[in-house]
Amino acid sequence: MVVTLKPGADREKADKLSDFLSSYGVKVNMNHGEDNDVLVLVGDTHKIDIDLIESFDIVASAVRISDPCVLSGRKNHKDDTIIDVGGVKMGGGNFVTIAGPCTVESEEQIIGIAKQVKAAGADILRGGAYKPRTSPYTFCGLRKEGIEMLVCAKRETGMPIISEIMDISHLDVFEDVDIIQVGARNMQNFELLHELGKQKKPVLLKRGLSSTLSELLMSAEHIMAEGNPNVILCERGIRTFENATRNTCDISAIPMLRSLSHLPVIADPSHACGISDLVIPLSLASVAAGAGGIMVEVHSNPECALCDGNQALLPSQFKTLVSKISKIRKAIE
Amino acid sequence: MVVTLKPGADREKADKLSDFLSSYGVKVNMNHGEDNDVLVLVGDTHKIDIDLIESFDIVASAVRISDPCVLSGRKNHKDDTIIDVGGVKMGGGNFVTIAGPCTVESEEQIIGIAKQVKAAGADILRGGAYKPRTSPYTFCGLRKEGIEMLVCAKRETGMPIISEIMDISHLDVFEDVDIIQVGARNMQNFELLHELGKQKKPVLLKRGLSSTLSELLMSAEHIMAEGNPNVILCERGIRTFENATRNTCDISAIPMLRSLSHLPVIADPSHACGISDLVIPLSLASVAAGAGGIMVEVHSNPECALCDGNQALLPSQFKTLVSKISKIRKAIE
Amino acid sequence: MVVTLKPGADREKADKLSDFLSSYGVKVNMNHGEDNDVLVLVGDTHKIDIDLIESFDIVASAVRISDPCVLSGRKNHKDDTIIDVGGVKMGGGNFVTIAGPCTVESEEQIIGIAKQVKAAGADILRGGAYKPRTSPYTFCGLRKEGIEMLVCAKRETGMPIISEIMDISHLDVFEDVDIIQVGARNMQNFELLHELGKQKKPVLLKRGLSSTLSELLMSAEHIMAEGNPNVILCERGIRTFENATRNTCDISAIPMLRSLSHLPVIADPSHACGISDLVIPLSLASVAAGAGGIMVEVHSNPECALCDGNQALLPSQFKTLVSKISKIRKAIE
Amino acid sequence: MVVTLKPGADREKADKLSDFLSSYGVKVNMNHGEDNDVLVLVGDTHKIDIDLIESFDIVASAVRISDPCVLSGRKNHKDDTIIDVGGVKMGGGNFVTIAGPCTVESEEQIIGIAKQVKAAGADILRGGAYKPRTSPYTFCGLRKEGIEMLVCAKRETGMPIISEIMDISHLDVFEDVDIIQVGARNMQNFELLHELGKQKKPVLLKRGLSSTLSELLMSAEHIMAEGNPNVILCERGIRTFENATRNTCDISAIPMLRSLSHLPVIADPSHACGISDLVIPLSLASVAAGAGGIMVEVHSNPECALCDGNQALLPSQFKTLVSKISKIRKAIE
Repeated sequence: MVVTLKPGADREKADKLSDFLSSYGVKVNMNHGEDNDVLVLVGDTHKIDIDLIESFDIVASAVRISDPCVLSGRKNHKDDTIIDVGGVKMGGGNFVTIAGPCTVESEEQIIGIAKQVKAAGADILRGGAYKPRTSPYTFCGLRKEGIEMLVCAKRETGMPIISEIMDISHLDVFEDVDIIQVGARNMQNFELLHELGKQKKPVLLKRGLSSTLSELLMSAEHIMAEGNPNVILCERGIRTFENATRNTCDISAIPMLRSLSHLPVIADPSHACGISDLVIPLSLASVAAGAGGIMVEVHSNPECALCDGNQALLPSQFKTLVSKISKIRKAIE
Repeated sequence: MVVTLKPGADREKADKLSDFLSSYGVKVNMNHGEDNDVLVLVGDTHKIDIDLIESFDIVASAVRISDPCVLSGRKNHKDDTIIDVGGVKMGGGNFVTIAGPCTVESEEQIIGIAKQVKAAGADILRGGAYKPRTSPYTFCGLRKEGIEMLVCAKRETGMPIISEIMDISHLDVFEDVDIIQVGARNMQNFELLHELGKQKKPVLLKRGLSSTLSELLMSAEHIMAEGNPNVILCERGIRTFENATRNTCDISAIPMLRSLSHLPVIADPSHACGISDLVIPLSLASVAAGAGGIMVEVHSNPECALCDGNQALLPSQFKTLVSKISKIRKAIE
Repeated sequence: MVVTLKPGADREKADKLSDFLSSYGVKVNMNHGEDNDVLVLVGDTHKIDIDLIESFDIVASAVRISDPCVLSGRKNHKDDTIIDVGGVKMGGGNFVTIAGPCTVESEEQIIGIAKQVKAAGADILRGGAYKPRTSPYTFCGLRKEGIEMLVCAKRETGMPIISEIMDISHLDVFEDVDIIQVGARNMQNFELLHELGKQKKPVLLKRGLSSTLSELLMSAEHIMAEGNPNVILCERGIRTFENATRNTCDISAIPMLRSLSHLPVIADPSHACGISDLVIPLSLASVAAGAGGIMVEVHSNPECALCDGNQALLPSQFKTLVSKISKIRKAIE
Repeated sequence: MVVTLKPGADREKADKLSDFLSSYGVKVNMNHGEDNDVLVLVGDTHKIDIDLIESFDIVASAVRISDPCVLSGRKNHKDDTIIDVGGVKMGGGNFVTIAGPCTVESEEQIIGIAKQVKAAGADILRGGAYKPRTSPYTFCGLRKEGIEMLVCAKRETGMPIISEIMDISHLDVFEDVDIIQVGARNMQNFELLHELGKQKKPVLLKRGLSSTLSELLMSAEHIMAEGNPNVILCERGIRTFENATRNTCDISAIPMLRSLSHLPVIADPSHACGISDLVIPLSLASVAAGAGGIMVEVHSNPECALCDGNQALLPSQFKTLVSKISKIRKAIE
């Protein structure tokens, strides 16, 4: 159920209403909109009398939700959401380049690459510390230590940073991380999404390997319904029968998501294809299709990378890519 | 790396070796085999000198792992694993019928259904308490309270129980649950798998919607490498282009998994097809293909079920199914 | 448009009506039903005035088709269709075993295998002569000569025979073939389907690699709308992301097709899995799921087979399979 | 087997060799290369003695084919193939825009649209006459009459034309058609491919709905091995689990095919997505990814189109697209 308050509704009365609604055994999340405050009730609301709620003087309307994307969808939120990440703006026509190694390997490595990608035009630094790995016998990241090294690189370069979280219990470690990434395998780890919804840091939500766009939006909704409106959607390739590329980069997801949702939409061509030679054409394709940003892996020495070296660009290739992206952005204006 | 100790190796010396190996920054898990104890090293082992390890007098051999399914695969473990679940045996030619409602709705409901399925021949009672739901605005289970009701039904009927876990932090709640189920969406939630590997309760691991059999076995390996050998594999349908059924029940996965692994393999046709009319033919097909058990949803009043009612069998249909299964098992002997 | 004639409508008048309808530029196919004759109009019927047609005295009703499976679907044809193939009955509770080599290699080979599979209990002999091959540089069958050898085996053993057609222009060669098979790759070769609809020989229509059940039924409809009601549907595996098996045998298609259509439904597990060890469990699963027959590859010397040897059963394995099938059929009665 | 002749080998001797090879029961296709003539033997070559063939004085080498893409692959043919279509060049860095209605509806319609797309910058006119339709009860094109109208539009505007063939028997009708299109459903209709290989008109080969890139190249090889080197590859969307778009446009196929093959590669975003709003972003993405052309559907009155109107661009939208494509092509140079 969504209860929309009248513009300028008294905050104290709103809190009392919220308490009253909670007494029905549902979770009540307050969302402060531009014009109105909105209470989102999560859980079983069938016992709540809509007429009763609408009789409160601060209430403009109360509606049972049939649209599972009431917050993430474009319908009730015509304008693009713009998210500020340490001064870098995402969404609403802004374009953001996120670059860095697949995995943080050492302080020296991450600071070195950070400086290179910054010089080449990157806006945000990426680096994996907690790495989900299919086999238990492969390198799974430096974990807490890796995040600390990434934070060093942030201090050194001034770039905002993004890294993937794998479990709620690690949330404290991400204090200085600017965007928390939820990986494809965790797109429907709802307990994790709920906890990320209870804090305010931007969340980059990657599409699951076999998730529909509708499911991706509903996962964004799980975060937003808990109170965090700062969700960024990321296409990263889906699993199909084709095995010439690791995954099939679904470029059509980009314009489709932009039409369905007001949230920023970016693409991660590195994971989608798994082959560095394809990263540049797919990045350019994503931009031409209207992506609001790309996230690519860059490594100064791909052959020695501890993880996914064959999909990493060299810093020089990345520089060329940034320059081409800028031309394509002008071409499609 | 896998370090196999000599038969009858001194336990104290083994502990010292384990400490020594841990000093390389890897996790060391002790597995007590029938003949030998085996140390499984998880993490980056490339700095460890194999010759040095083999020079310890209690060590029979030390091998770097190239096979990511060294524990879950059939190669090093020819005989079927048999898992005892509160007196019910799974694997090794035993057949187990797991039945119950999709969701625990009330104490009365779960006890009622438990008695009916037991009378009809079920071995283990299922019931969802923590429900992963695509949309945040749908009923998500009674959670802790649901588990408590399920435990009541266990006490009332003497049946072992199984329920799905969604996050590590709920583990305490599952103390009296006999099998912990990991759902399809969490098959690659590695942090959860690791925690479930650190305890000894049997884990029923469902195949992810777009996971290969190889990935399913590697997820089992994540649990086993942490020290818990009690993993049950479950085929529950994969996502394909076909939409006449909710998912495509991959029956060939059953004989294939039995050939690749020594772990018990069961099928969940209810979730695979999502249509009660198909549950009986697909259950029989699973048995004919060699499944070591089936898990089906049974509800005494499917039209009023809070969740997935259209895939539930009536208790009377379930009874017919049990009888047909028994005939098919004789036919394929 | 479907024009249903009154029972016992005068044949001469019916022919005149048919000519009249043809003058609108549509194809008119006459279907002789048990009670009524039915004219099926294929093509653009929007210029035809329904009221005018209904005013003919032999016309019971004229209906524009919104259901694209008006002939193949169960809705207007409650009873199972039974097709007689040289004395062997398919559909309506009958069970048929089709066996033989992937490819006819020589007269000696096909006659030898024919005798073996007949002795083991096969009803119909299969053998490929025109072989669709992904690569142009592989053996593509003995073509016309292969069909002639198959016909020899039919004369020698008295078994009806089935073989795959690849192009309309080969139709003459199939004069003595009892069932014409349309392979997965040609399921939507509509020109071929139309020609096969203009003759009366039974057509075994295999599901395309990525065809939905709805598309399979519409392809059957293409044949039936031209006047041939003798279509047999065959599940043979679909293409998914899983590569442990060649294709994913969609066993749920069997009960689903039986519910959607009155046509006989059989399964071809050999092509579905591509591995002989899986052929027996998948055959048994198909039978348990309600298939009205199976088609399997049998070769007396699989290692030397010119094509697909690794999916062929030995005659002795086939004999065991036939015996198990018979037990399972009793179990599910 | 591929028999490469010495440069300048005597034509008469070559013919005699060809006759000799044919006596082994294989088909021998002569390919005239830039430097050498090459004989491609299709069929079972295992009885042919390689040493004997190499002893002919005009033979440079004889090699049994292990690579099924010996003609279509990049390995033996480093330079891009350039195909001349009535003065329009395809491949080798040239860019071609193919536009027109899904279906030819009348002479007036096709000439009208032809003039509009030509004015907007199209190079080649498309128009369907033989339409493969899933249901037999939908408009299936004007067939021969439709081709004749398309030829009128060619005469009127001077544009080369392309249309889809559905069966070998229609080949005569395509005499004045410049490119013969093989649709996705016929990509593995090998008899059709072989006939198209025996003539010299360029063939545009669309990727099947569930065909791998490797299978697409092998289908091209079927055409080329019969003697026709003029094959154009076309990505048109694959079938996946996602249903927000009709198919999933696999943009990564474009750079991948260009790397694997020397043949021209184009994209058909109209069929891939089925939604006109996505046609522009996907066309631009295809160009950015390196496509050598696009084929899009344009209709002056999409709401009244007899077929697929919701994926057609208006002539004005097409004009905008052509202008943006030209900017993107400059950006990626």
